[in-house]
Amino acid sequence: MARKASLSGFPEWLPAERAVEQHVLDTLRHVFELHGFANIETRAVETRAQLLRKGEIDKEVYGLSRLAAEDDKNDPNALALHFDLTVPFARYVVENAGYLAFPFRRYQMQKVWRGERPQDGRFREFTQADIDVVGDGTLPFSYDVELALTIADALSALPIGDFRLRVNNRKLAEGFYRGLGLDDPDAVLRAIDKLEKIGDEAVAKILVEEVGATREQADAALALAKIRTLDTSFVEQVRALGVTHELLDTGLDELSQVIDAASKRAPGKVMADLSIARGLDYYTGTVYETVLVGHESLGSICSGGRYESLASKGKKNYPGVGLSIGVTRLISRILAEEVVTASRSVPSVVYVTLANDDSWHEAQDVASKLRERGIACEVAASAEKFGKQIKFADRRGIPFVWFTHADGTHEVKDIRSGEQVAADPQSWMPAAEDLSIAIS
Amino acid sequence: MARKASLSGFPEWLPAERAVEQHVLDTLRHVFELHGFANIETRAVETRAQLLRKGEIDKEVYGLSRLAAEDDKNDPNALALHFDLTVPFARYVVENAGYLAFPFRRYQMQKVWRGERPQDGRFREFTQADIDVVGDGTLPFSYDVELALTIADALSALPIGDFRLRVNNRKLAEGFYRGLGLDDPDAVLRAIDKLEKIGDEAVAKILVEEVGATREQADAALALAKIRTLDTSFVEQVRALGVTHELLDTGLDELSQVIDAASKRAPGKVMADLSIARGLDYYTGTVYETVLVGHESLGSICSGGRYESLASKGKKNYPGVGLSIGVTRLISRILAEEVVTASRSVPSVVYVTLANDDSWHEAQDVASKLRERGIACEVAASAEKFGKQIKFADRRGIPFVWFTHADGTHEVKDIRSGEQVAADPQSWMPAAEDLSIAIS
Repeated sequence: MARKASLSGFPEWLPAERAVEQHVLDTLRHVFELHGFANIETRAVETRAQLLRKGEIDKEVYGLSRLAAEDDKNDPNALALHFDLTVPFARYVVENAGYLAFPFRRYQMQKVWRGERPQDGRFREFTQADIDVVGDGTLPFSYDVELALTIADALSALPIGDFRLRVNNRKLAEGFYRGLGLDDPDAVLRAIDKLEKIGDEAVAKILVEEVGATREQADAALALAKIRTLDTSFVEQVRALGVTHELLDTGLDELSQVIDAASKRAPGKVMADLSIARGLDYYTGTVYETVLVGHESLGSICSGGRYESLASKGKKNYPGVGLSIGVTRLISRILAEEVVTASRSVPSVVYVTLANDDSWHEAQDVASKLRERGIACEVAASAEKFGKQIKFADRRGIPFVWFTHADGTHEVKDIRSGEQVAADPQSWMPAAEDLSIAIS
Repeated sequence: MARKASLSGFPEWLPAERAVEQHVLDTLRHVFELHGFANIETRAVETRAQLLRKGEIDKEVYGLSRLAAEDDKNDPNALALHFDLTVPFARYVVENAGYLAFPFRRYQMQKVWRGERPQDGRFREFTQADIDVVGDGTLPFSYDVELALTIADALSALPIGDFRLRVNNRKLAEGFYRGLGLDDPDAVLRAIDKLEKIGDEAVAKILVEEVGATREQADAALALAKIRTLDTSFVEQVRALGVTHELLDTGLDELSQVIDAASKRAPGKVMADLSIARGLDYYTGTVYETVLVGHESLGSICSGGRYESLASKGKKNYPGVGLSIGVTRLISRILAEEVVTASRSVPSVVYVTLANDDSWHEAQDVASKLRERGIACEVAASAEKFGKQIKFADRRGIPFVWFTHADGTHEVKDIRSGEQVAADPQSWMPAAEDLSIAIS
């Protein structure tokens, strides 16, 4: 990570760094599958019409055109690279609805592309790991709770230190604003979303001057956004603000269910944070954001929420709830700060040396026997002096070298300690921590 | 696979099909790592200048441009999607040479894109799995042997039936043609490459009319291309054609080494096939192709060879030898012909039912205990009638349902057999073949 990407915004990892990324992806896959999520991949491209439906992000989209053909930017059937995994998933669900059992739960870990200006934590090509549950017509609220617990499980299994999942509910916010007498809850949310960037006074000014709130209404909206609790005591704090509305009741109840379950099953990891707005995304209930404790400036590493309509076709409607982990953002930070390192950059545990050029087949026999028992190894390409072969293994970071003697006996040497012992290719095993690349 | 891709040339799999693909990728990864290959990924994009260096394939390349910006097709720094993993790997090696230990062995499994006309076995987006070894300055020939054995190991581990790796050597062919008195070996190779498509007579005609061969020279070139042996007896057959040349000797020696080792270590899997030309690719020695026995019409599922110069920079030269598996081509065929199927489409082994709505937490406790021991499970979202909950699990293909009774005892039912037994969430284990999705 001392290296600079040769193309700005398109990071590439060295083998040991990639081993860390693989460990993260393997761990996520393992946890997601334990929770019953099936994997899918969608194509990297969508039609431009599909991607631009929301209409607000066209400048970030990379269009595609065969170099031999003319590109017509106005052709809605022309192709472009997906900028997230939600839009492709929604299309996939509609197209394959007849083949899927609902509620359909899937995870998806793929690269996405955005033509934005690269900066710390923002890339033009990056990997997202998404989980979503989508229902056919309806989707019980308990999935909102389950998704929070699944993500808390997944993030807890990663070598990333402490994190906090911050949860809010759009119904709670909207009900509160309406109860206050503010009729454009989206405009209030957009202003509140700027709180961290511009501060209380500036947000109050927007609320009063642009949204038409009184100073008292603005202060109440700000007071709501200040509430943060690790248990369900947020309910009492909201009630103390004296606002009532039916939608507020629903929102309080839903958020309570998430926080109540989380405070029991993932204590300290999940908090009610009534400032979370999730910008312009079209969520309709629960919203999630996640920060790495001590790395708050990185922004959210895992966000999502509930959609009343993830996808629809004709009379069919598919509500969903999901979360997306910004894997590249996470990896780039833990690599840069050396929070995590790989024990070596090669899978090989053993380097099988050659006593002479005729011993290549014999060495391959040893290697086959080791591999049959899951021990990764390489055979020397030529019979150089043993000192040179050992140095080669050492330079590649392979911990053990193997010698086969003229009398048919074998020895294995731990390069790190210098210890050399007799060994049998049918039974010798390295220590468990040496068997695979260790990430710690 | 009864389904048609919604965008021609861009296949997408259903969850059970994706499970087959994951199994193939996991297996390849496992074997490649056992052989000491480290994983890397490169960015999906390269500059157009980088991709078009060979100059022959520009019409297949997908250019990229931000929709908000003007696309200048003549800008060499403009971006495009990679069409293979070799060109990006060569760039990666040159850029990161100072951080890599040579010979550097890596595997890479990523999607690539080509704007060609889709047809059976040809896609616009597809996954390749490549292994290469690259040296700094020199690379011993024994790697050509090792790569053939590694690939034979990898393909043998896949559920794809019988395959045959066909190996030839460019030096052998070039030496033979030169020994015959033909001075444009590339032109001869290009004609021989058409043998399977157009037949002997048509190739002979090209050799005589376009390459300037005599009928005798053409016949000798055709005779060479007819030689196919599973052992090193091809040497004798070539010698019997009476041609001599120094380069022919080198080629015969190199190919013998590959076939000799393979006939011992992977008997029946690797053959010398002197018709293999590998079209216009810039190989300089060993060339490999692979067919699925019984599916020869699919074309090669795994091809590669030796490059005297995979990459170079200034005085630095990096020779390499590698092979690339066409994963999507392979998967699409084994799925279409149902050679392989997944035992279920969801990772979940157990569906934890709810006796009533208040038992959600208790059910989550059961699920946590099962997951701690690696058993994937889902908890019901609402306490419907047991019959309905069982039906739900059955429809999702989950083999077991879990019941927690009012007295705190538990039972688990195998939906397939109907057998229901007492069980303890701390110790119950499903049969090994039910624990993960089985691919067979």
